[in-house]
Amino acid sequence: MSRTEPAGTPLGDAFHVYDTTLRDGAQREGISYSVADKLAVARHLDALGVGFIEGGWPGALPKDTEFFARAAAGELRLRHAALVAFGATRKAGTTAAADPQVKALLDSQAPVVTLVAKSDRRHIERALRTDVDENCAMVADTVAFLRGEGRRVFLDAEHFFDGYRFDPDTALRVLEAGVTAGADVAVLCDTNGGMLPLGIAEVVTEVAARTGYRLGIHCQDDTGSAVANSVTAVQAGATHVQCTANGYGERAGNADLFAVVGNLVTKLGMPVLPDGAFGELTRTSHALAEIANIAPDTHQAYVGTSAFAHKAGLHASAIKVDPELYNHMDPKVVGNGQRVLVTEMAGRASVELKGSELGLDLAGHPDAVSSVVATVKEREAEGWSFEAAEASLELLMRSAMGDGARVPFALESYRVIIEHGADAAVVAEATVRVVLPDGQRQIATAEGNGPVNALDAALRAALTPSCPWLSQVELSDYKVRILTTGRSDSYGTDAVTRVLLASTGPSGSWTTVGVHSNVVEASWLALVDALAFAALRERNAVAAAR
Amino acid sequence: MSRTEPAGTPLGDAFHVYDTTLRDGAQREGISYSVADKLAVARHLDALGVGFIEGGWPGALPKDTEFFARAAAGELRLRHAALVAFGATRKAGTTAAADPQVKALLDSQAPVVTLVAKSDRRHIERALRTDVDENCAMVADTVAFLRGEGRRVFLDAEHFFDGYRFDPDTALRVLEAGVTAGADVAVLCDTNGGMLPLGIAEVVTEVAARTGYRLGIHCQDDTGSAVANSVTAVQAGATHVQCTANGYGERAGNADLFAVVGNLVTKLGMPVLPDGAFGELTRTSHALAEIANIAPDTHQAYVGTSAFAHKAGLHASAIKVDPELYNHMDPKVVGNGQRVLVTEMAGRASVELKGSELGLDLAGHPDAVSSVVATVKEREAEGWSFEAAEASLELLMRSAMGDGARVPFALESYRVIIEHGADAAVVAEATVRVVLPDGQRQIATAEGNGPVNALDAALRAALTPSCPWLSQVELSDYKVRILTTGRSDSYGTDAVTRVLLASTGPSGSWTTVGVHSNVVEASWLALVDALAFAALRERNAVAAAR
Repeated sequence: MSRTEPAGTPLGDAFHVYDTTLRDGAQREGISYSVADKLAVARHLDALGVGFIEGGWPGALPKDTEFFARAAAGELRLRHAALVAFGATRKAGTTAAADPQVKALLDSQAPVVTLVAKSDRRHIERALRTDVDENCAMVADTVAFLRGEGRRVFLDAEHFFDGYRFDPDTALRVLEAGVTAGADVAVLCDTNGGMLPLGIAEVVTEVAARTGYRLGIHCQDDTGSAVANSVTAVQAGATHVQCTANGYGERAGNADLFAVVGNLVTKLGMPVLPDGAFGELTRTSHALAEIANIAPDTHQAYVGTSAFAHKAGLHASAIKVDPELYNHMDPKVVGNGQRVLVTEMAGRASVELKGSELGLDLAGHPDAVSSVVATVKEREAEGWSFEAAEASLELLMRSAMGDGARVPFALESYRVIIEHGADAAVVAEATVRVVLPDGQRQIATAEGNGPVNALDAALRAALTPSCPWLSQVELSDYKVRILTTGRSDSYGTDAVTRVLLASTGPSGSWTTVGVHSNVVEASWLALVDALAFAALRERNAVAAAR
Repeated sequence: MSRTEPAGTPLGDAFHVYDTTLRDGAQREGISYSVADKLAVARHLDALGVGFIEGGWPGALPKDTEFFARAAAGELRLRHAALVAFGATRKAGTTAAADPQVKALLDSQAPVVTLVAKSDRRHIERALRTDVDENCAMVADTVAFLRGEGRRVFLDAEHFFDGYRFDPDTALRVLEAGVTAGADVAVLCDTNGGMLPLGIAEVVTEVAARTGYRLGIHCQDDTGSAVANSVTAVQAGATHVQCTANGYGERAGNADLFAVVGNLVTKLGMPVLPDGAFGELTRTSHALAEIANIAPDTHQAYVGTSAFAHKAGLHASAIKVDPELYNHMDPKVVGNGQRVLVTEMAGRASVELKGSELGLDLAGHPDAVSSVVATVKEREAEGWSFEAAEASLELLMRSAMGDGARVPFALESYRVIIEHGADAAVVAEATVRVVLPDGQRQIATAEGNGPVNALDAALRAALTPSCPWLSQVELSDYKVRILTTGRSDSYGTDAVTRVLLASTGPSGSWTTVGVHSNVVEASWLALVDALAFAALRERNAVAAAR
């Protein structure tokens, strides 16, 4: 059996960061982890240095049973965390040893077991259909049995806050049954997620004073307060906090591990992760979103790509003077970065800052700054948006500075035909006519599953012979938005289309933008910028190689 | 000048729900409201019954100036809310009357003005480059000037919490300067968003006791605690709370209006919205996400589509017995619904309910119900969405019931050509070939400013002679979303396009949907449904007239 305590964190067993992404997090609508996914999630969490990883409910879910079997067989070697199996107490009217679900917990070989127990009298009577005495006996028997088998045991007191408000004596008796039998943390769960911080602080303080037990906290986000409730509970005396990566969980979700840890470390000064791990927060969050196949929340506290992004001109001018005045902390500490968004709200300071972020010395080119600010304002009024299309912005800045970053061709014309034939098949075909830098004229035709796909294919066919590096560049994402810019919002008269195109090449990925009343032309404009940026990257790569 | 107080809420002016979606919310990365968008947002917020709508910063942003001008010209008639202009105090070394930015606040004709003032000495000295005396004079002068011009004034004390920790006397002097000059709410802003609830409670309680001023709260979400911090401030005595729809805002965002209001109403028992408005929370949240063109957060507290969705087998079985044990509140109260994800598959009851909502007696057609459930399930897996396209859903239901609601033609073929010529002009031309019910073949060609516009024009040209009522039907909105449905997210292989088309005719408006890998074909499918629905409406109108 492996470790039962966190290893490598300055606080050791005195404070528990307990992750339940693989059990409670998996209840989120849209998440469906394979066993391989679960092993990968556990490895990321262990590398970050959480103290406990709840792997699932062996015996209840076949995938979870397999996860524990493969972990025990050597597929999961944990450096920091202890592995935890989650399960229920024995059923009413039997013994723990005879209950197959309890046996499955032992069979999982997890060194730590978290038992869920009902602590709200209404749930005991109406959902479990038993009485408080038998419920307490179920808790005590199961804890004692597992302790006797050498397991460390935590007790999750389900619906504790609702139960404590309704009948505090019953709620406390359930904790007592577990702790007296050998559970060493009594975890107070806000299972329905209806609590607010001041209520959490009051109950945690009171229960700690009345029992003297080591307390844990488990919050759901139904009031949008799971992170705040968890941190407040720690301030009120809890020394064990249950979270999930990115707040994944049933209904509105659980307390987000990364925000909770971010707050504990930077606001409460608690070194809850191993040395050096805090800088991995952002990367870990994004990796776990990837495994869950959920787009990362760009606005997530601490780890979102927008978490330190500034748009207001008011702020940007002051950030130049003194960045620490405008962020609550240094984003680098959590592996994130500050970004200045250039939009119509931006002034000269934002443009200069953005330029230096992109490695361009705009400060020495005041005319170029004026020209960029004017162009951005004018284009954004027409519906362009550069904040998500930094490659187009960089091209615009370079062009204002006289740096000739250009597409490697001149367009003569293009034509796209979409036909829905009598056989109901839909075909898109594009023809482009371009002139290369050496004066050579190229014509190419290609089909695609839509007009933009066909246009992209035809342009590549025309250019690849002279730009072989183009074969390594791919379009990786495509977004379309219809905008109504003017006063009237009638369709077809002043609606314009904005296209955002993400491209990927050997040097990373970049996004470009195009706006036009015709969706195909808007896409074309973004496509041309994408190739110009690819050519710029290629030029820089060649220069660097010299 | 219009009202300066909330109207129609039980709490009247005693408690302010203050929305800043249009100013602070617009700082969110990815949001770019047009003036028409801003007017639409304001109308939704007013219908929900917020007390104050901060419309923007007139004089600083041209769009905001235009928004206030159009609001004053009669495009915005508010039933509940007072309109607020946001702006800065006069610059150092001038008078309020002579400052063009202050004049722009007056020119906006907004009856209420919120002035932002620095209250952190470091910001006064390092960012504003002046001293505390002059900063306080700037606040006092500007407030007094605006009060003299008949405006109600609120004071946003920027960086208040950081400033109060660093130098409480300066922070309090700034509040005093504003309130003494006539500001009637001192809003404490956690501008950098680094606070946690217990710290908020402590400072709000202390400042209230030391000053006796009416206090407001404005929180950012950088610790993931904006909602909890806002509600905690109210519990500590703040009577004015600043929020944004769905928490939109700079960096990690602001306090989410819907979660804050949800908590105030259901947890603190404060009737902060007009009678009946609370049930509109979910609908309003989704409508505002639509206008911002941001996918709604499915896991948002109170209003997310998953906010009351239960996946756990443990819960799902018990919910049947006793739903109130497993939700922190009744979802219907906020216009949301409980969903049990495992049994959602069936969906027969909801199809029947929807049918009766649309006036179709599906209960008597069990086979039709099965067919609709199967078709919806299959199409939604391919990327269709009927939630926002009830006209397409009604056509599907009628077709399953054998009610021949059909388009008044059969398509033979269409062809669209988009040409970008050597003169840089972009032309879209469409040709459609259709067969009318009487067997007559029609061919028509038309140009448009984009492929869909051209296709619509050509189809109308072909059909209008036989369907003269078509001239009264217009396309009023067009939305495109690129979806990645399969496992791989590579562009061009499994990306499909979903088009939502809103149409308007003599009998109202309706929305249809089309999905295809080719954007033109997806638009075509939505267009055909739109005309079929128009034909159905026309048939019903003719039948009713007989």
